[in-house]
Amino acid sequence: MGEYKILSKIKSPNDVKRVNDKDISALCTEIREKLVETVSVNGGHLSPNLGVVELTVALHRSFNFPKDSIVWDVGHQSYTHKLLTGRFDAFDTLRLKDGISGFPKRSESKYDDFNTGHSSTSISAAYGIANAKVLSGDQSYTIAVIGDGSFTGGLAFEAMNNAGRFNKNFIVVLNDNKMSISKNVGAFPRYLTTVRIQPWYIRVKRVTEKVISKIPLIGKPIKSFLQHGKSRLKNMIYKNTLFDCFGFTYLGPIDGHNVEELENAFAAAKKVNSPVIVHVVTKKGKGYQPAEEKPGEFHGIGKFDIDSGEPISSHTGFSAAFGETLCEFAEKDKKICAITAAMADGTGLNRFAKLYKERFFDVGIAEEHAVTFGCGLALKGMRPVFAVYSTFLQRSYDQLIHDAALGRLHLVLAVDRAGIVGSDGETHQGVFDVSMLNSIPNTTIYSPSYFEGLKKSLATAVYICDSLAVVRYPRGGELYKPDDFGEESIDYNIYGNKNCKNLIITYGRLFSYACKAVEMLAEKGIEVCILKLCRIKPIDSEAVNFAANFQNVWFFEEGIKNGSIARNFSDLLVVTNFRGNYHIKAINDKFVKQMSVSEALEMLKLDSQGMTDVITKDLKDSK
Amino acid sequence: MGEYKILSKIKSPNDVKRVNDKDISALCTEIREKLVETVSVNGGHLSPNLGVVELTVALHRSFNFPKDSIVWDVGHQSYTHKLLTGRFDAFDTLRLKDGISGFPKRSESKYDDFNTGHSSTSISAAYGIANAKVLSGDQSYTIAVIGDGSFTGGLAFEAMNNAGRFNKNFIVVLNDNKMSISKNVGAFPRYLTTVRIQPWYIRVKRVTEKVISKIPLIGKPIKSFLQHGKSRLKNMIYKNTLFDCFGFTYLGPIDGHNVEELENAFAAAKKVNSPVIVHVVTKKGKGYQPAEEKPGEFHGIGKFDIDSGEPISSHTGFSAAFGETLCEFAEKDKKICAITAAMADGTGLNRFAKLYKERFFDVGIAEEHAVTFGCGLALKGMRPVFAVYSTFLQRSYDQLIHDAALGRLHLVLAVDRAGIVGSDGETHQGVFDVSMLNSIPNTTIYSPSYFEGLKKSLATAVYICDSLAVVRYPRGGELYKPDDFGEESIDYNIYGNKNCKNLIITYGRLFSYACKAVEMLAEKGIEVCILKLCRIKPIDSEAVNFAANFQNVWFFEEGIKNGSIARNFSDLLVVTNFRGNYHIKAINDKFVKQMSVSEALEMLKLDSQGMTDVITKDLKDSK
Repeated sequence: MGEYKILSKIKSPNDVKRVNDKDISALCTEIREKLVETVSVNGGHLSPNLGVVELTVALHRSFNFPKDSIVWDVGHQSYTHKLLTGRFDAFDTLRLKDGISGFPKRSESKYDDFNTGHSSTSISAAYGIANAKVLSGDQSYTIAVIGDGSFTGGLAFEAMNNAGRFNKNFIVVLNDNKMSISKNVGAFPRYLTTVRIQPWYIRVKRVTEKVISKIPLIGKPIKSFLQHGKSRLKNMIYKNTLFDCFGFTYLGPIDGHNVEELENAFAAAKKVNSPVIVHVVTKKGKGYQPAEEKPGEFHGIGKFDIDSGEPISSHTGFSAAFGETLCEFAEKDKKICAITAAMADGTGLNRFAKLYKERFFDVGIAEEHAVTFGCGLALKGMRPVFAVYSTFLQRSYDQLIHDAALGRLHLVLAVDRAGIVGSDGETHQGVFDVSMLNSIPNTTIYSPSYFEGLKKSLATAVYICDSLAVVRYPRGGELYKPDDFGEESIDYNIYGNKNCKNLIITYGRLFSYACKAVEMLAEKGIEVCILKLCRIKPIDSEAVNFAANFQNVWFFEEGIKNGSIARNFSDLLVVTNFRGNYHIKAINDKFVKQMSVSEALEMLKLDSQGMTDVITKDLKDSK
Repeated sequence: MGEYKILSKIKSPNDVKRVNDKDISALCTEIREKLVETVSVNGGHLSPNLGVVELTVALHRSFNFPKDSIVWDVGHQSYTHKLLTGRFDAFDTLRLKDGISGFPKRSESKYDDFNTGHSSTSISAAYGIANAKVLSGDQSYTIAVIGDGSFTGGLAFEAMNNAGRFNKNFIVVLNDNKMSISKNVGAFPRYLTTVRIQPWYIRVKRVTEKVISKIPLIGKPIKSFLQHGKSRLKNMIYKNTLFDCFGFTYLGPIDGHNVEELENAFAAAKKVNSPVIVHVVTKKGKGYQPAEEKPGEFHGIGKFDIDSGEPISSHTGFSAAFGETLCEFAEKDKKICAITAAMADGTGLNRFAKLYKERFFDVGIAEEHAVTFGCGLALKGMRPVFAVYSTFLQRSYDQLIHDAALGRLHLVLAVDRAGIVGSDGETHQGVFDVSMLNSIPNTTIYSPSYFEGLKKSLATAVYICDSLAVVRYPRGGELYKPDDFGEESIDYNIYGNKNCKNLIITYGRLFSYACKAVEMLAEKGIEVCILKLCRIKPIDSEAVNFAANFQNVWFFEEGIKNGSIARNFSDLLVVTNFRGNYHIKAINDKFVKQMSVSEALEMLKLDSQGMTDVITKDLKDSK
């Protein structure tokens, strides 16, 4: 591995256009090698990128970026695009601090037109770009590349509904890999199956060349596209698909691993005088056997061994503990239901999905629907638990207020990846959920530090709470727990000398860092007690009374400061006639860039050293 | 008017079933009279309700509620349902404090299965209910009634995608009135037009009875449905619509003003062994001429004169001032674009839509798409302004974070109906936007008190800010402005004696109430100064320094307390070594029910009397 004779010479998309047809296959092989090599060391999204190598090469040979514009939906499939747009040399820094992002970033390259990270935004953004071009007389093309999984998100349909009357130069590439992150679900993906498997001769019968050539303006190019392509190219349906109902011209299905076919399709798409959807069929994980066999596991992955495909570190963390706990509940209680938005694997629900199939609901990449659907289940006496990453829960804000909390429906949220997530970077940090959920009435939030607290608070959320109840926990596993800590309470724990002058208030995994900070401070002769919250909303009035006795209080919080627990708790402290000083260390109105979790916590002064420094300095300043 | 011979005897749905066929038409007339009579006095949603009178009657004659379940999308068309389910006598209290809600409320009636208010939730909720029934062995029917406008919201499609494989007893009634709130937009509504206008004989040719009777199980009932119905009943398409792509069986189009046809259609729908969509064509405003002529104006309306249809009070308020200002900008600047999510009328954009058609974008009921689409426009140099009600902006939280703020794209939000909205009640209160927007980095928020401040801050948001910028303003018009107030600043104003001990901090329309409170307090010998913020994020450090000089500070805020400006400002005060007392009066972790704006502000102690009482009491307590 590692010679990259062709790839290393590609400095810009123009170089891609200059590659001889006979070398295209070798180029694609080199790209795949580079992808596997880099992701095996840095972690990242592998199977989505392996699936779109030829598609990306064909796009760069067919269009003129950055004059033409391209929006990569989610963006986790943009690695080949990065390799072909001058970022080959820097690619080893993928997902590292100050390195190449795992997602498109305008700040990184003029070839990255729109920042993405969350699903289903591409058609909306591209349609905005296309309209701005029309208003300013710009004739260039605008392309959205979106997977069949992302198409299950409502935002994509809102955009399709809006875009269907647009004139031209607007192309949606549907990258149909029959998967979202794991196996795709829902009517839309099933519909694509029927489009894919329909025998070509039936489709061609419907769309004879004779009929096509009668269509004004676009007839001829499509006819030539049909005549010159290979036989599979003829498998084109015109005016007969769901996309047609939306006013799009449909071209497809196209073999997504045949650069020539793809180039022909894009040439035809350019000439159509309406918005076009190019349906491209790809294989997720293509070209790397372990990823082809287990595309779900290689969707997003940590470091792994290239030869065996085995992950280098195993991850049994909070997600697994949650999944096991929910299975325990479900075994005894037939009302327990689990909901996921295409994240059964990531949220630890795989075992539940197998054991309790009829009570497991994968609703597609549809966080809004997941919440309102869960409310319907709750209404009729089920006990639904929606497991979701903190960052994706942002999609459900209105449904949480309007359908769950306002109706006092007993939906439980298991919020995974709460807090800093590391190399996925700023689009994926779980730092907004606390502010967001804090603003919602009738809501209880738990943020345990250990599996013990997760289990207890989940039991409380499911069996004691009677409205929206949330248990949130970080990516990864349990961290440091002092030997003398005792049992984790679902309300709050006090750890250390209650009678000293200094108090740290924190929750979740930061408690582990706080414990080490207290040890470090003790060595300096500074005594600090810790108030570890588990239930963070509503705030416990006893805990406030306890804290009011201290002279100095520090809040450490892995989330946005506005709307934080610290802001709420400190206000209650002041009202309780607290006469000491308090200090808040949280994320102050900014996004947190990509870097490892420990690097981010260090930067934010939320790790043990940071806490120690903050406290030492504040005490020094106040003297 | 007002005799209601038939209607007044209907105490429950069973009574609807007992009405003779020959009296149905008279019943519908009485219902319409009651609707017009009540809404003309109480205000409310008129045209949506007039459109579904026969549909609602037919539903109650065809199903057994509350054994069967029904979810009314948005819920603004549920008045007839309320009249037929024991709420005729109380109907005069519609939308009043402690009265009948303008939306379905579980707390109000066992016949209201699911609380609604926002668009596009019904299929999700109904599908949840239907699944819970399956899990508990309940064979009853579950029905969602959704308009063609609501269908443009992505949530509806997420639900359709998920629900398409469901077995039976699940019926979606598509109430197609060719309108959302104003004229409907987008590919989906256009598609319905093609379904509606296709000549019946072509459709029947495609679906001969012969073919149909071969379909196992459902063939016979459908055949009989075709044979026994009237000729228009035969206009049924089977396996040939967009809905079919989603796995739904399509029945329709049905005349939504013919109770017999509707009953026949529901009888057929009950027997289909898959999810069914019943496409019902209705006329918005049906039966009351002014509403038929101007269904948009009578969508949601204040008191009006029944004979003339003229509104009793005219409303030139902040919406109109915003619309005029944006037109002024657009005249000079070709980059100004306006975006609305089906609310051109409500947000004051009607004139803009006419004058600058090519720069006006009604995207459908699609707040998520509106934001991401606007980001695309901004990316390519346009100056997009998305005008949206505060409560509906909740739908866009993730897009605001992920697409606008994170990408530092210069989208401007004009947030209308910010604060208490009155009789629409708890689903529509604009009390979350400040908490929500406060949590988002790279965001500037203005909350002016007068048209002057609106114009200035909109100019700043459009021409000075370079990332997400928000101008928010209340429903209605300008309130009290003291003669000696001077010019409204976009940063902050100080009003009153700067050297006294007491300070009120507030923003938006509450400043008017605060001014009166200050006058009332002066009469009691209590001197109070006011710090009126216009820019509420980021908070002005000069303003904080100014406030720190006072002994007593009161915050009055028409929004949720967690995440509020008060919480943020008071924290900054404390950090600035403020040694006085502060008091926060905001909406403390609860929903605000339906009542007039003044009743709500009184209850919340946010009107002049409330402020006066709070301050007097606090000063007394602190002595």
